[in-house]
Amino acid sequence: MSDWLKSLKTPTPQKGFELAITLAREGVVYTQPSAEIRTKLRKKYAKDADSLIMVSEVIAIHFQTVAAANNYWK
Amino acid sequence: MSDWLKSLKTPTPQKGFELAITLAREGVVYTQPSAEIRTKLRKKYAKDADSLIMVSEVIAIHFQTVAAANNYWK
Amino acid sequence: MSDWLKSLKTPTPQKGFELAITLAREGVVYTQPSAEIRTKLRKKYAKDADSLIMVSEVIAIHFQTVAAANNYWK
Amino acid sequence: MSDWLKSLKTPTPQKGFELAITLAREGVVYTQPSAEIRTKLRKKYAKDADSLIMVSEVIAIHFQTVAAANNYWK
Amino acid sequence: MSDWLKSLKTPTPQKGFELAITLAREGVVYTQPSAEIRTKLRKKYAKDADSLIMVSEVIAIHFQTVAAANNYWK
Amino acid sequence: MSDWLKSLKTPTPQKGFELAITLAREGVVYTQPSAEIRTKLRKKYAKDADSLIMVSEVIAIHFQTVAAANNYWK
Repeated sequence: MSDWLKSLKTPTPQKGFELAITLAREGVVYTQPSAEIRTKLRKKYAKDADSLIMVSEVIAIHFQTVAAANNYWK
Repeated sequence: MSDWLKSLKTPTPQKGFELAITLAREGVVYTQPSAEIRTKLRKKYAKDADSLIMVSEVIAIHFQTVAAANNYWK
Repeated sequence: MSDWLKSLKTPTPQKGFELAITLAREGVVYTQPSAEIRTKLRKKYAKDADSLIMVSEVIAIHFQTVAAANNYWK
Repeated sequence: MSDWLKSLKTPTPQKGFELAITLAREGVVYTQPSAEIRTKLRKKYAKDADSLIMVSEVIAIHFQTVAAANNYWK
Repeated sequence: MSDWLKSLKTPTPQKGFELAITLAREGVVYTQPSAEIRTKLRKKYAKDADSLIMVSEVIAIHFQTVAAANNYWK
Repeated sequence: MSDWLKSLKTPTPQKGFELAITLAREGVVYTQPSAEIRTKLRKKYAKDADSLIMVSEVIAIHFQTVAAANNYWK
């Protein structure tokens, strides 16, 4: 695996939210390394309401971590 | 993406709750950028009890983050 | 939306638990504003074990937030 | 509702775990006040592996709150 | 119920992880006290990917609590 | 069980993320010790979008714990 995660520090909450999205995706990438399979699966989950809500939940948990790591960008 | 998230600070808990809703929605928007598809999906999940409960759960996780960021509006 | 959430402070843990229930419900109300649809859906989820457990989970997450906001009513 | 929740303080972690179970149950009781319906539903979820795991998850979230409230019984 | 939970303190993170597993299981035991039924259910969930992932999630929440209780074994 | 978890300390956030993945997997290994069964199940969940999202959620919860344990690698 390349060095994709060097720090949880981000300049803004939005960059923190986008890091949370990366973390959520990496959880899937590490579990299913095949980009081909993931692309096929995207066709299904990207048009499934419950799947999209579940993705948003994983992002929410990671965002909670990243926000704490950045002391909520106070 | 536009600058939609500049701060987690809100004047009141209610505004904090509404920011949590925005964060929950943005998790879906980033994952499924097509407004057309999201509108179609809304017809389904907005009339499905379990889907609505799952949305409320994502809002709850984000609200926990926003509340901590605002020191619970003490 | 009316001013329904002015503070997370509650006099007792029980009032905090009841606020958590309100927060869980508001997550659904904001997502599905139609009381008519929500009433119809209640007939289903209120008699479905898994749905009721999921509702209890959302309440648990909000109660965690409200308890921290009240310093656990120490 | 009677005064069922006056404090999150418990003498031991086990009593804290049992309070977490009460909190998880009360989340269902407030949502479905009919004991008759809840008894009927118990026959189903008490013999369903996934439902039992979901109940354990709600207890885990409440236990996290109760443990923090008791400073982990240090 | 016997005195099964006297402390959240463990000598090592691994012992803390194993305590988290015990807590996850006890959540099921308190909810379904029949060992006979639980044994029957194990045949199903122990061979179901999603059920095993859900169990791992409950363990993760309890481990978060136990880790905080032990100040992360620093 | 061998000594697989001696510390939550990791040199980098990425190593912390990889520890979170190990913790998520160990939750399944302790619950289903048979490598044969787990290999069979992998064929299913590794090609199922919702299962992969659920795995990512467990990783997110463990990463939250590991990140706090490492004071967010500040």
